[in-house]
Amino acid sequence: MRHGQGRNTDPSGSGLANLNTDVVVVGAGPVGLFAVFQCGMLRMRCAVVDMQEAIGGQCMALYPDKPIYDIPAFPLITAAGLVEQLSQQAAPFAPTYHLGVSVTRLTPGADGSIEVSLSDGRKIDARAVIIAAGGGALQPNRPPLKGIEEYEGRHVIYKVTDAQALKGRRVVIAGGGDSAVDWANTLAGIAEHVLLVHRRAKFRAAPASVALLMQAASDRRVELVTPYQLHALQGDGKALEAVTVVNDKGETRDLEADTLLALFGLSTQLGPIAAWGLQLHEQQIVVRPESCETSLPGIYAVGDIAVYPGKLKLILSGFAEVAMAAHALFPRVHRGEVLHFEHSTTVGVPPVDRHAVRKAIHG
Amino acid sequence: MRHGQGRNTDPSGSGLANLNTDVVVVGAGPVGLFAVFQCGMLRMRCAVVDMQEAIGGQCMALYPDKPIYDIPAFPLITAAGLVEQLSQQAAPFAPTYHLGVSVTRLTPGADGSIEVSLSDGRKIDARAVIIAAGGGALQPNRPPLKGIEEYEGRHVIYKVTDAQALKGRRVVIAGGGDSAVDWANTLAGIAEHVLLVHRRAKFRAAPASVALLMQAASDRRVELVTPYQLHALQGDGKALEAVTVVNDKGETRDLEADTLLALFGLSTQLGPIAAWGLQLHEQQIVVRPESCETSLPGIYAVGDIAVYPGKLKLILSGFAEVAMAAHALFPRVHRGEVLHFEHSTTVGVPPVDRHAVRKAIHG
Repeated sequence: MRHGQGRNTDPSGSGLANLNTDVVVVGAGPVGLFAVFQCGMLRMRCAVVDMQEAIGGQCMALYPDKPIYDIPAFPLITAAGLVEQLSQQAAPFAPTYHLGVSVTRLTPGADGSIEVSLSDGRKIDARAVIIAAGGGALQPNRPPLKGIEEYEGRHVIYKVTDAQALKGRRVVIAGGGDSAVDWANTLAGIAEHVLLVHRRAKFRAAPASVALLMQAASDRRVELVTPYQLHALQGDGKALEAVTVVNDKGETRDLEADTLLALFGLSTQLGPIAAWGLQLHEQQIVVRPESCETSLPGIYAVGDIAVYPGKLKLILSGFAEVAMAAHALFPRVHRGEVLHFEHSTTVGVPPVDRHAVRKAIHG
Repeated sequence: MRHGQGRNTDPSGSGLANLNTDVVVVGAGPVGLFAVFQCGMLRMRCAVVDMQEAIGGQCMALYPDKPIYDIPAFPLITAAGLVEQLSQQAAPFAPTYHLGVSVTRLTPGADGSIEVSLSDGRKIDARAVIIAAGGGALQPNRPPLKGIEEYEGRHVIYKVTDAQALKGRRVVIAGGGDSAVDWANTLAGIAEHVLLVHRRAKFRAAPASVALLMQAASDRRVELVTPYQLHALQGDGKALEAVTVVNDKGETRDLEADTLLALFGLSTQLGPIAAWGLQLHEQQIVVRPESCETSLPGIYAVGDIAVYPGKLKLILSGFAEVAMAAHALFPRVHRGEVLHFEHSTTVGVPPVDRHAVRKAIHG
């Protein structure tokens, strides 16, 4: 029996239909996108799940404009360009993208299927899973302040989803990069007051943005608190009252605030993957080099998150691992069928429905 | 000590200077070209040796215009386009190309160096060798005729290097593809007579070329001998006198001829590589999957010619193998230096001298 997409059910009563597919790809970065293509060439359909709201993984979230030189046959390509090319290459195989959602659990079934639980309550019934989660989940770097967890959400935030919600708030922004400078400039016209804390006097941001910031500071719309670092949070654990900062000489200042916007960049953490029961080695998933299969049958790992002897953390290595995994898991999807190796020059690719592609990626 | 290019000597007295380099890459197909780039990124210079007169390997020799769909991030690229992109990517690292030459022997030296002997008598002194020879040497398919070796060279030929040299000759052409049809049309105006032998009445060639051939046949400038196959060669072992052909009914004909041009395509054979003392498995070179090193230290194999458990004969797998080999052989070139892994986005690539590149490829 072969699984198809479309026969979706809602036994959970969550209001969201459950899904089934051939292969669930965890991670929509370059390697995950190429997994869709490789599986597609072997007549296997994919559902792609990513915590980020957009495809592209770290490439898009951290350095979309950075030039990459070591993708074979591209003397130079930007990270964003690479993602665009890969999503076009995957498009003929009509993957379904589930973005802004994370995988919470993988449950192997008795019949060789794998139930993939999503953070929105849905489940996907699949024949195999390819984990292409890069360095893991991209999460904001949290400053090491005692009791910070209690304030997170309303009083300590790591991103701004709605600037107008900060109207009338007393905001301390911490950080020295583009995000910190840009948000200081934007919130200067919205919040009741804005203080920008940075451990150096110099900001690592676009010169034009820094010039705007200096103007805002001289107009007293933003107060620059440099060179200072975050030291402590003052409050009752529910409402934040002040942020204590400290300089190199050990001198402290209490900055009155009801909101701390901490912008120290993103970093990757293994996150929920650590709880899936897979054999790990130093925050990476151990795989068999000849198939990229993990310690759990039917679950494969590729790209930066996978480790085996000689492993190189290069995007191009992830591409080759994807091909291995797709060929290795073929018998799980096409049961009883022997895979005849064919070159792409012989089989070609299906035509693309460009409208459907746009809809799948952008909703 | 680090090897450089340029200190070339001529101890052999052959008139051709010997060479030295960091890495000799055997094969100038896509994977060999990418080896130049990967080694270059790790500050290792390459000399590339290929039997063909042009770079590109099988891609260029057999199917330059064929679309390839499974190169990551290229929804479609022709074989020729792929080779062009890869040669551009390799160019900043100024490889030296030795084309139309084959490697006859690899001799490991006591100091860890490897002496690479070329068919033109030169030797290259290298720290390591990467064999990226695809399916091996591309050689014409030889028809199974008794004693054919004795006539090869002057009377039995597999390609035409100078059409005018066939002026006044009585030529039998065998084959049914583009080459056979095109050469029949061309030689019709040069040779004393041209007979075209094919086992079917229908030719697998461009319609316009077939139309020209039919015109030449009706003008009696070419005689079509179909459906016939080659059966035997008549002569004294020095001069060819006739080619005997046979049809399905077992009827034979003797075609008077002093030249047989046999055009049955090219196929790959391991060729001289079989004699280099490497561990082989079914016409492929056995490598360690974690480094792509062969059974001989310092000699690596990548791409279609390399085999290890789970091996897929995909160009993209060859690219990833090249990265492994380049990282693994780094300590042979940069002795005592520890390789710090760096992303291409951080280190960039050197600027390109476009004139030097053109000269290196085209002479």
